Amino acid sequence: MKLKSIGEFSLIDRLTRQMKRYDDSVLVGIGDDAAAFRTPGGKFMLTTCDMLVEGRHFLLEWIKPEQLGHKALAASLSDIAAMGGVPSYALVSVGWPAQMDLEYAEGIYRGMGDLAATSGVSMIGGDTVSAPQLILDVMVIGEMEAMPVTRSGALPGHVFAVTGSLGAAAAGLALLKSGSPVQDQSLLQAHLLPQPRIREGAILLEAGPPSAMIDISDGLAGELHHICENSGVGAAIKLEDIPITEETKGLAKRLKTSVLDWALYGGEDYELLVTLSAQQAAIVKKRLAGIGTGFHVIGEVTAKDDGIKLVREDGPAESIDKKGYDHFSDHKHED
Amino acid sequence: MKLKSIGEFSLIDRLTRQMKRYDDSVLVGIGDDAAAFRTPGGKFMLTTCDMLVEGRHFLLEWIKPEQLGHKALAASLSDIAAMGGVPSYALVSVGWPAQMDLEYAEGIYRGMGDLAATSGVSMIGGDTVSAPQLILDVMVIGEMEAMPVTRSGALPGHVFAVTGSLGAAAAGLALLKSGSPVQDQSLLQAHLLPQPRIREGAILLEAGPPSAMIDISDGLAGELHHICENSGVGAAIKLEDIPITEETKGLAKRLKTSVLDWALYGGEDYELLVTLSAQQAAIVKKRLAGIGTGFHVIGEVTAKDDGIKLVREDGPAESIDKKGYDHFSDHKHED
Repeated sequence: MKLKSIGEFSLIDRLTRQMKRYDDSVLVGIGDDAAAFRTPGGKFMLTTCDMLVEGRHFLLEWIKPEQLGHKALAASLSDIAAMGGVPSYALVSVGWPAQMDLEYAEGIYRGMGDLAATSGVSMIGGDTVSAPQLILDVMVIGEMEAMPVTRSGALPGHVFAVTGSLGAAAAGLALLKSGSPVQDQSLLQAHLLPQPRIREGAILLEAGPPSAMIDISDGLAGELHHICENSGVGAAIKLEDIPITEETKGLAKRLKTSVLDWALYGGEDYELLVTLSAQQAAIVKKRLAGIGTGFHVIGEVTAKDDGIKLVREDGPAESIDKKGYDHFSDHKHED
Repeated sequence: MKLKSIGEFSLIDRLTRQMKRYDDSVLVGIGDDAAAFRTPGGKFMLTTCDMLVEGRHFLLEWIKPEQLGHKALAASLSDIAAMGGVPSYALVSVGWPAQMDLEYAEGIYRGMGDLAATSGVSMIGGDTVSAPQLILDVMVIGEMEAMPVTRSGALPGHVFAVTGSLGAAAAGLALLKSGSPVQDQSLLQAHLLPQPRIREGAILLEAGPPSAMIDISDGLAGELHHICENSGVGAAIKLEDIPITEETKGLAKRLKTSVLDWALYGGEDYELLVTLSAQQAAIVKKRLAGIGTGFHVIGEVTAKDDGIKLVREDGPAESIDKKGYDHFSDHKHED
């Protein structure tokens, strides 16, 4: 059997099954945003990595080197934020094409270094090899005082809520692909310079930890499925409550495409999807407003048997497909 | 300027210069075998990563998947051993070609999982993406009670010593390249299934920490230069004292090639090169004999101005070139 005929998550599952022999210190192993272990000093530590491959995850003609460096680190920082942790250290392995300009390479490190500095992260190591195309793999180590928040604790009766807005990163990508001369900067920024929600994760934790949390790297639909499958619950998401900016809606209209598709199946928004009580959500909403970040309740955690549903004000509920970007089939798959 | 016109180490130096803004907890940053930081609990933690790219570091027709998985993890474990640490956790990022057989992918994870299990390492995470060729990036986190041993503490008057023997991995690679029907298993094993010197690193530390330590991943010559440049010392290495097995010597004779080239410039031996006092070396030699590992004094740490020299019993001393494998020029470079 070839890898392309297996979905990404089935593959991970199949390959790692035999590896799940963890030391007692391991709190969260393979299968969450980040792994977590307890140090002898009693501290919780988190670790995660994210690999970007030229031609699969980015094209050099569409992204400036500083943006690429920023984005490569942001993806891993977002995973630490999604556990409620604070990132501390990063390592980067880079595969460089020999023909690449030194100036471009320096730009990547500058972008990564700047985001590291503003995030309080020390870049302490890595590896450098030659490769046929540019490869960036960023590993981040984070810390936290409390137990990490996983994808598996969602409770029926709690609500689903998200930080910021959805679909803007997909809109930015569509804008680049369209070659349109009108380039909306906020949408391009959402795609090229995503901001990991580290402060937001910390504020969520302070308000009493959410029952589940995940970062939206592969579209809302896929992340809803991850939480529901891991927690053994269902979801009822209200279409009208999904936060989508006017810029995102406007571009979808201009390009005659479905804005809902961007929000549900577009990747790389790097917002946080959480489940928590309605009361907690109200407290968090106020506190996040204080740092200028939106926070919207988008639906309810339901019983597993109720499935994962999209509820419209004026129509019947429908199931939300898992789809989302699958790296192996290189297209949205519908099963 | 193109990257191929810059050496690997100059590139790392140039790119990371602007990043060296470390938190106070960082003990060892970019530029050693592994980075080290102190946890709030007062423990020392180590972290390192090693990336292997198909076609650059391995060819699928020459290596079994289990061996490849083993080797990818071994390279990072060796870096932890070279600081005197004990590896605890590993993450692996994999770029998979869609055409790869599931069976091969499973073999890689089996090999990695087996080495992890025998090394007391929990595989706790990673990333999985698609890529045009197979890419493996393994990140390992280790721990230690004492201060890590760096490459920068070598003291004149101390001796240089190495674990095991040198050149066998290069001999194994030459054997594969030669297509010879006579395949010496010990040489193939040295290339395909290197054993990271974790126990040896711990024994070295117990005997009183070496003044400097490094793992020999790119040939003895290059590692001597790393220690000498970082410590501000010179080296006088005795040709006749470099441990080389009879199998390695025999193959060099058969292939009419220089066995010294394999020992000095052949990569992937993953032995430890240390500097320590002659008395300590004698103690370590006895203790390592107890676990069946050779340990040989190969020369002396000298003053910086004396340079890095190879001394022969029957001839004049000559300088040891840095060369060693450079990933960007894809050939041994002579400058």
